[in-house]
Amino acid sequence: MQKVNLSEKLARIAEAWSPKVVGEVNDFQVKLVKLAGEFVWHAHALEDELFLVLQGELRMRFRDGEVRVGPGEFIIVPHGVEHCPVADEEVHVLLLEPKSTVNTGTAGGERTREAGWI
Amino acid sequence: MQKVNLSEKLARIAEAWSPKVVGEVNDFQVKLVKLAGEFVWHAHALEDELFLVLQGELRMRFRDGEVRVGPGEFIIVPHGVEHCPVADEEVHVLLLEPKSTVNTGTAGGERTREAGWI
Repeated sequence: MQKVNLSEKLARIAEAWSPKVVGEVNDFQVKLVKLAGEFVWHAHALEDELFLVLQGELRMRFRDGEVRVGPGEFIIVPHGVEHCPVADEEVHVLLLEPKSTVNTGTAGGERTREAGWI
Repeated sequence: MQKVNLSEKLARIAEAWSPKVVGEVNDFQVKLVKLAGEFVWHAHALEDELFLVLQGELRMRFRDGEVRVGPGEFIIVPHGVEHCPVADEEVHVLLLEPKSTVNTGTAGGERTREAGWI
């Protein structure tokens, strides 16, 4: 039985917006991701998505407003809700979501990344 | 869409070993719990369980050894694996587990708590 140290794993992530898997809990995955700049508007058909901020401030944009999420805070985006994460400075996030979740959701496109393990 | 601040929620928890729900992600729940002293040996029939330590040091005992988990670290206990969490000093933990998870698993007993929302 092994523990996982978030800082050690984060140090191994170079590319922004490319989530990496660090754990599985039944059919859910824990991922770490670095955010920098603005992502694409997207939604997930079936998957709710939890963003727990570890460092920096995440601006989660919704069609009707924005929520600023800082270290020690999380936000859950329900499936079907369009959102666009923005990081004015680098933000480190722990994601918790079903294994089936793709980073760009139903939007797809060039910023889609398959989340491998680190 | 609301964010959740972990410290604010933790400040509202008085009783140790009584997990409180702070979020739902599909069929999973995010819970916060304060640990102090030793819990009971138990396992969960179906549910894997993630313990992310926010404060203090968690000693997760297994039948074949112990893993010490500190702040910024997590451990995932697979279903079916007997474990006994121990906190020599107060430990604050974020739990991530299926909604069906009961704190004492298949052991049951007087330390069983139903996890309500805070």
